[in-house]
Amino acid sequence: MFNQKVYSNRRQNLRKLMKSGFAVFFGNSEASMNYPANPYRFRQDSSFLYFFGLNYPDLVGVIDIDNNTDYIFGNDIDLDDIIWMGNQPTLKEKCVSVGVDKSGNLKALTEFVKSNLKNGRKIHFLPPYRSQRRIQIEELIGIPHSQVQKHASIELIESVVKLRAIKDEYEIKEMEETMDNVTYHMHVSAMKMAKEGVYEREISGFIEGLSMSNGGTVAYPIILSVNGEILHNHYHGNKLKNGQLLLIDAGAESPLGYATDITRTIPVGGRFSQQQKEIYEIVLKAEVDCIEKIKPGVHYKDIHLEAAKIITAGLIDLGIMKGNVEEAVSAGAHAMFFPHGLGHMMGLDVHDMEDLGENYVGYGDGTQRSDQFGLAYLRMARKLEPGHVMTSEPGIYFIPALINTWKNEKKFIDFINYNVLDNYMNFGGIRIEDDVLVTSAGHKIIGNKPIPKTIEDIEKIILP
Amino acid sequence: MFNQKVYSNRRQNLRKLMKSGFAVFFGNSEASMNYPANPYRFRQDSSFLYFFGLNYPDLVGVIDIDNNTDYIFGNDIDLDDIIWMGNQPTLKEKCVSVGVDKSGNLKALTEFVKSNLKNGRKIHFLPPYRSQRRIQIEELIGIPHSQVQKHASIELIESVVKLRAIKDEYEIKEMEETMDNVTYHMHVSAMKMAKEGVYEREISGFIEGLSMSNGGTVAYPIILSVNGEILHNHYHGNKLKNGQLLLIDAGAESPLGYATDITRTIPVGGRFSQQQKEIYEIVLKAEVDCIEKIKPGVHYKDIHLEAAKIITAGLIDLGIMKGNVEEAVSAGAHAMFFPHGLGHMMGLDVHDMEDLGENYVGYGDGTQRSDQFGLAYLRMARKLEPGHVMTSEPGIYFIPALINTWKNEKKFIDFINYNVLDNYMNFGGIRIEDDVLVTSAGHKIIGNKPIPKTIEDIEKIILP
Repeated sequence: MFNQKVYSNRRQNLRKLMKSGFAVFFGNSEASMNYPANPYRFRQDSSFLYFFGLNYPDLVGVIDIDNNTDYIFGNDIDLDDIIWMGNQPTLKEKCVSVGVDKSGNLKALTEFVKSNLKNGRKIHFLPPYRSQRRIQIEELIGIPHSQVQKHASIELIESVVKLRAIKDEYEIKEMEETMDNVTYHMHVSAMKMAKEGVYEREISGFIEGLSMSNGGTVAYPIILSVNGEILHNHYHGNKLKNGQLLLIDAGAESPLGYATDITRTIPVGGRFSQQQKEIYEIVLKAEVDCIEKIKPGVHYKDIHLEAAKIITAGLIDLGIMKGNVEEAVSAGAHAMFFPHGLGHMMGLDVHDMEDLGENYVGYGDGTQRSDQFGLAYLRMARKLEPGHVMTSEPGIYFIPALINTWKNEKKFIDFINYNVLDNYMNFGGIRIEDDVLVTSAGHKIIGNKPIPKTIEDIEKIILP
Repeated sequence: MFNQKVYSNRRQNLRKLMKSGFAVFFGNSEASMNYPANPYRFRQDSSFLYFFGLNYPDLVGVIDIDNNTDYIFGNDIDLDDIIWMGNQPTLKEKCVSVGVDKSGNLKALTEFVKSNLKNGRKIHFLPPYRSQRRIQIEELIGIPHSQVQKHASIELIESVVKLRAIKDEYEIKEMEETMDNVTYHMHVSAMKMAKEGVYEREISGFIEGLSMSNGGTVAYPIILSVNGEILHNHYHGNKLKNGQLLLIDAGAESPLGYATDITRTIPVGGRFSQQQKEIYEIVLKAEVDCIEKIKPGVHYKDIHLEAAKIITAGLIDLGIMKGNVEEAVSAGAHAMFFPHGLGHMMGLDVHDMEDLGENYVGYGDGTQRSDQFGLAYLRMARKLEPGHVMTSEPGIYFIPALINTWKNEKKFIDFINYNVLDNYMNFGGIRIEDDVLVTSAGHKIIGNKPIPKTIEDIEKIILP
């Protein structure tokens, strides 16, 4: 946990941004896997963690905007709980550790909310992403669970996004340490394990175990696949063969809940083929050049378009695309190979604050969302400010289903050489990803132990 | 997946047990961790798996009792899904693989249910354990989510328990293989890693990774703690010291969802102390002797009481307890040291069918539940039948909070030597657990590679 001052300050900063009323932050409950008492690993709600820091289930925090008071509500444990789950600090002790004076049990929360609503005070809450929360809000506030989403407070969303978007020194330190102490080792281990005959799940299991051995876990389900062209591929049942590409998108979550998010693509057997090298170098150039462009004042959408242009230019050089780079990108033809956005904000969530709405997080400054295939999926488009942390993760994918569909539709035939694509139908996909902090001077890549990403460095790690 | 015949037969068997109407089995959806698109590892509902075998989210199976027809409802995927998640069999193809003829999308499910309810047919469903399911049932059937639990069909619960309680040869093979191929290695690896200076989380992370490397995962959150006296302890932050006991309760879940559940307690540094040996031998005797008593026709409650007597007799020998064994057990004094039940059924859930109600699963044959501390927690009391699989897991724990409370209350002073307990306040706890199949001839321990459990074998593995 950070120092209690950190949490008090965050709550004070929220109070300054809000006009009136009281903001209720629902902590998460245990989530049942296959019966009530067999839960998934507990994951606290990120906004609750940000303002109240406590990593226990069934707590509710309140920031009273008008009265300059903070509360945490929850039930203390009894002897039976101690036998089954061990001793715990009391609720009072937990509150002190994060600088909160007032506390009460969950019954007191109900009374608190009902009496404040009766007095005509405005209640603010964030949009729920678990059904359990919808039911909890229905029971507490009386809004039917199906209506809860649209009663979320836009003022609160915007204020929380404003604060959480700018990472402070403690948060950055937490991410840097997790990168160096855990995520680095996950990727280097995966590279060394990627030999012919090994199953993907043996590697993904081992590196997920590594993420847990540091007291955290993975920040998101690991993607580790010889079918890197499937963007969110969670199947790990393939046996590796020499000559295949293996895409590894994996990052540890720190003990305090902060994400890291790294992708590397490596050759099984230790040597890239000529064809693989050609595509790899394009993606690497896009990644490195785009990171170089990160600095305050630049729109991330423009850097995304820069990546699209580098990829298009590279594919034209190889004869896979054709025509004019600017025209191809403006038409959206590159999205056949690069269908996703360059990156997303990262912090207490790997897609930071995605539960609050991508439009508030990635576009909040008035940047307009496109509806073009590829561009529509940009999670982050806004103007960069010091303290933003986001991923840079360009990729080139050869997706048979997409290629065949567009080919049949004769889509972008002025920009795509479909006949050449026959040679790439089994290629798979390449993505390279790092996490980048915007600084006042420009940027800094998160982590101080670079994870190999040039062809030379990767080949040296796998087959010295 | 098992052969399609297996699933057809199971559905046919259910049909024979039920009187009329139609039974709806809700498969699970993805469960959000910290925002909608960041899910926990997908876990299918166990009863859905049992009857319909498909391990995909958002499916609903229907067994029509009267019409001899089975259905699976779900939505097929589109091109966008293929890009993000890869190709999948169609719903039709999925249905064929488990012997189901009729299928439809989720809209068709709504129409199916509404028209059958309108025709006055009886709908059966199992009690939900996720809030999402409660909302789904409210929307589909019109029962308010808060009322859903009590509208669950007791006839369906009893029929499902009857079938799932008896494991067939395929299920037993799946558990045996997972035990030998994964769980065995998890425990032997943990034993070898348990050295002074290592953190609990390094071991638990590694063995959880091992469970995943076989295509499954853990069947339940790992308990791996030097504070073994805390029964469901999920904290893994302690650094091991020589002389401590380390309790490891961990089991892999098979790729098809079947659990294994093993506990070993080992000495950090490789050698048990004299005090540890004395307690260990009592627990081991209770475990081994109780397994010997397992055979058809015996009530598991009686075997639990046998464990209680062995533990009490052992503790009397050591001067920790006193008086008459039978009287002490009948009063419940042993529950200070052995507060939980001897075991629980195991199958597609580690506590098999706990979502359907412990009373149906563990007491279904009319065996009465006790309200005595310790006995009240028996998950399994019923008469044993061939095909039952359950755990045998006696333990002795020295729980400071419980000792101090009872001591202050002067509880059972005729049976407990509280002054002697001062020497055991830092002892921790010992539990030893194996999984046992009831056979017509008696019993068989699941797995064919015994995991070390005698003092000699454990010491030899850790410090050869």
